[in-house]
Amino acid sequence: MEKLKYTLGSITPLDTEAMRLARARQDQLTKPPGSLGILEELSIRMAGIQANPLPQVGKKVIIVMAGDHGVVAEGVSAYPQEVTPQMVANFAASGAGINVLARHAGAEVRVVDMGVAAACDIPGVIQKKICPGTANMTMGPAMSREEAIDCLIAGIEIAEGEIAAGADLLGTGDMGIGNTTPASAILTMFSGASLEHTVGRGTGIGAAALEQKREAVRRALEINDPDPGDGIDVLAKVGGAEIGGLAGVILGAAAHRVPVVIDGFISSAAALIAASLSPASRDYMIASHVSIEPGHKLMLEELGLKPMLFMNMRLGEGTGAALASSLVEAACKVLCEMATFAEAGVAEKDEEKSSAESDQV
Amino acid sequence: MEKLKYTLGSITPLDTEAMRLARARQDQLTKPPGSLGILEELSIRMAGIQANPLPQVGKKVIIVMAGDHGVVAEGVSAYPQEVTPQMVANFAASGAGINVLARHAGAEVRVVDMGVAAACDIPGVIQKKICPGTANMTMGPAMSREEAIDCLIAGIEIAEGEIAAGADLLGTGDMGIGNTTPASAILTMFSGASLEHTVGRGTGIGAAALEQKREAVRRALEINDPDPGDGIDVLAKVGGAEIGGLAGVILGAAAHRVPVVIDGFISSAAALIAASLSPASRDYMIASHVSIEPGHKLMLEELGLKPMLFMNMRLGEGTGAALASSLVEAACKVLCEMATFAEAGVAEKDEEKSSAESDQV
Repeated sequence: MEKLKYTLGSITPLDTEAMRLARARQDQLTKPPGSLGILEELSIRMAGIQANPLPQVGKKVIIVMAGDHGVVAEGVSAYPQEVTPQMVANFAASGAGINVLARHAGAEVRVVDMGVAAACDIPGVIQKKICPGTANMTMGPAMSREEAIDCLIAGIEIAEGEIAAGADLLGTGDMGIGNTTPASAILTMFSGASLEHTVGRGTGIGAAALEQKREAVRRALEINDPDPGDGIDVLAKVGGAEIGGLAGVILGAAAHRVPVVIDGFISSAAALIAASLSPASRDYMIASHVSIEPGHKLMLEELGLKPMLFMNMRLGEGTGAALASSLVEAACKVLCEMATFAEAGVAEKDEEKSSAESDQV
Repeated sequence: MEKLKYTLGSITPLDTEAMRLARARQDQLTKPPGSLGILEELSIRMAGIQANPLPQVGKKVIIVMAGDHGVVAEGVSAYPQEVTPQMVANFAASGAGINVLARHAGAEVRVVDMGVAAACDIPGVIQKKICPGTANMTMGPAMSREEAIDCLIAGIEIAEGEIAAGADLLGTGDMGIGNTTPASAILTMFSGASLEHTVGRGTGIGAAALEQKREAVRRALEINDPDPGDGIDVLAKVGGAEIGGLAGVILGAAAHRVPVVIDGFISSAAALIAASLSPASRDYMIASHVSIEPGHKLMLEELGLKPMLFMNMRLGEGTGAALASSLVEAACKVLCEMATFAEAGVAEKDEEKSSAESDQV
């Protein structure tokens, strides 16, 4: 708990002076001001995150956390629970989507067992098992408050280890059969939106299973009555071990001024937990894609984050984060590597013909 | 003209058998079917383009074509015309946005003078100047019909040269002060939409210049009366040399079963010309981003293309194409490199709980 408190206390605002210098440089680069849109905004935010007007992204690491969920007993998923450890093994063997996309983006992958139900002692998998799957949240809390805190601390430690080993950027990813159900419950708590908007088809369940899933979330919230003002309470009662671990990764990254790219629906639920514990941590979060899971858009709105990729993806694992990590790197390269008007001998804009509003970055 | 006819005749439909095999493999990869969304669709289309169920993207080349526009005399741009050759020099010196983003994506850049008003004999710039800038299209045709055909043929030849040298993927890019004005005119012709929807602020003009720009497009269409059923007529009367060249690049790529990633507003105007000359060429086009130039969305709808990146970009140069070229490569790697359920020993979906409709790729 001391570790968590210390981390939360270490998360500070972005460096506005570095951002001012980065913005001034962007306006001197050989392009109409603002014409690279989100790439420019990202580069300026990266300057604020790194407290460096010429931010760099070298080593990128995607942290994929796995956990199981007692709520699968309610028939909320199209896949059996044994798929969680099977996919963890697939990650370790580099056969999954995240392995291919991270390799393509030049990012490394770490796989963490946060709470897989089965034994998961696979070489290459980091062992942080807090519980052998959560309890069925429709019958009581998914985890104890102590377990929820342990998840957050484990995530912070993982982030700190990677940052100490040289990571300039972290990405989040998840694996856990049934985990769109707790993610939907978390979204419902923080947004106050109806279950029609917060609970979707996940990996692709039919209409009957979707009804069971909504009913499971409704009962979990009723029986547990989580306090939306207390992120740890929400995480414990209707969350999951991998969600708590990822929230810890986000907080750990923010505390060390490292950007963290948020993947899809599950990772964004973790981001909601992190933001509830530290609103300042949001400045360190970078959205990647919009999942076709309908609640994801709502989550990003709650977080105040703008996604870049519209790919109709809904795999999780960090696949969207891997693709977006390359865009963050590109944004920094634009700021650092493009020529200025003066360097290139290019004429600047005719201010009389310009529109002030369209020059906003 | 023979060259153009031959090229148009060489553009054939996608290979449906390769697509069937690619789709079958996608459904055996360790993920819920369809969960990688547009990446899966792209990989299947790439199989059809290359006539290969395991499509590969090795060498990627972004072709940036430059030209000037007589219509700048109407005050349609915020930048002076001298910026066109200055930016061409900047491309050749690797200082521009496209250089940075192409390098990041692992793509090469070719710079072509299709119709820059000034002399442009810069080392590294490919010389294909068809005219020293177009004529002012508000007073008559921008180019002669012969010049328009020469632009298309030059573009085809550039594409063929790159493909012969090993390019697996081409991307389009443009540079030309004032070129959103002809692009808007082309969009107006093919979409029939009003000037309020087709003419925007380009690099960032103010309200008064926007009115001048709309009036210029209105007069150009009135005085020239292009035939929307004849793409060459539209290109000659209200197009531009770099737009014609890029349309040729697209046709040349399609004729050789090479995918071509379409950048923003100008490149999409070129794609509209290409599609009007060969509807089958659309299958070889891959959309990259949605520009904040308002007419761009309309262009992509006309072309039937789905963009992947929403970055609020409006630079042109091929910057969106460079970023998206990396996504096309990623899509092919997913198809070729991910493990199947059988290979990884992962259990498949419980069909009883599944929704048929959500499994659609």
